[in-house]
Amino acid sequence: MARWEGNARGRLERAALDLFRDQGYDGTTVAQIAERANLTERSFYRWFADKREVLFADDDLAACYLPSIEAAPPRQAPLPTLLAAFASTPDVLRPREFVVERAAVIAASPPLQERELIKMVSLNRRLVAALTARGHDGQTAYLAVDVGSAILRLAIHRWTLGDDSDFAALLAAARQDLIAVAVT
Amino acid sequence: MARWEGNARGRLERAALDLFRDQGYDGTTVAQIAERANLTERSFYRWFADKREVLFADDDLAACYLPSIEAAPPRQAPLPTLLAAFASTPDVLRPREFVVERAAVIAASPPLQERELIKMVSLNRRLVAALTARGHDGQTAYLAVDVGSAILRLAIHRWTLGDDSDFAALLAAARQDLIAVAVT
Repeated sequence: MARWEGNARGRLERAALDLFRDQGYDGTTVAQIAERANLTERSFYRWFADKREVLFADDDLAACYLPSIEAAPPRQAPLPTLLAAFASTPDVLRPREFVVERAAVIAASPPLQERELIKMVSLNRRLVAALTARGHDGQTAYLAVDVGSAILRLAIHRWTLGDDSDFAALLAAARQDLIAVAVT
Repeated sequence: MARWEGNARGRLERAALDLFRDQGYDGTTVAQIAERANLTERSFYRWFADKREVLFADDDLAACYLPSIEAAPPRQAPLPTLLAAFASTPDVLRPREFVVERAAVIAASPPLQERELIKMVSLNRRLVAALTARGHDGQTAYLAVDVGSAILRLAIHRWTLGDDSDFAALLAAARQDLIAVAVT
């Protein structure tokens, strides 16, 4: 961490989001992002491999979820293990307004969408691996991650819509809704 | 359909798959694919927009599912509507051996993986739209498509492993497995 740059990463993310929104992803250069954040291009590349990376801090999600999965009680079923790990999601997400704007910018840009999907698949693979390491068979682990992801997505969606319930409660409600859809 | 070219599309797919497997996606040109299929590059572009497209006939999936969803009994719950549509999946899929090889080739190539993910998201969006057109609210439609996709993926996985059950039965079994994971 280069302290003297004062939240360089956050400033670069914010600058990139504003520029992508106002002039499009394709029309924005790394130089412009750095300039708007009052930093050098060199700083930019200290934090991000390329322009596409700037909106993706998803690695933090794995760093947040995986230790919790590893520490879960032995023989706990896979979905409760995932949901307990997901409960800390709001600690990793950016502020709500940023998440909403980010989603809109990504939806408008195929290259960003592709990157997001790849990141999601890679996160899911790590979750599946973490569950199989706990002794669940592959098909069950994969299914639990699919189910868990659907629950997480719905809970995040409601959170972005302004629902300020405890995130564990949002996950529990989304799980009940998923079960209702699955059994009906 | 250019009949005189005798299954040109299938031959191009097969040729592309062989070349991608043997010499990698990046190392293969459209000219090589056409040559191996005993066709011209011009023929290739009659069927596919670019090299990445050649393994993706997913539009056929939407063409197969959407009419079934539209024709479903009014007031039928969303998941049974999706699963009834998915039952015809094997009619659209290529032969099992092709599907298995294709999955391996895609997994080995990030550009192909990205294209597959984008296609999947786009198919899912059309499924969500088809369900909301039937009067289901957006969150329920989205959740049903997430749940339905997880069930479909597991059923296809078991089909590629050689399970020759009726596909509707594979879907029903996968649904029960999903419910077990969701409620445990």
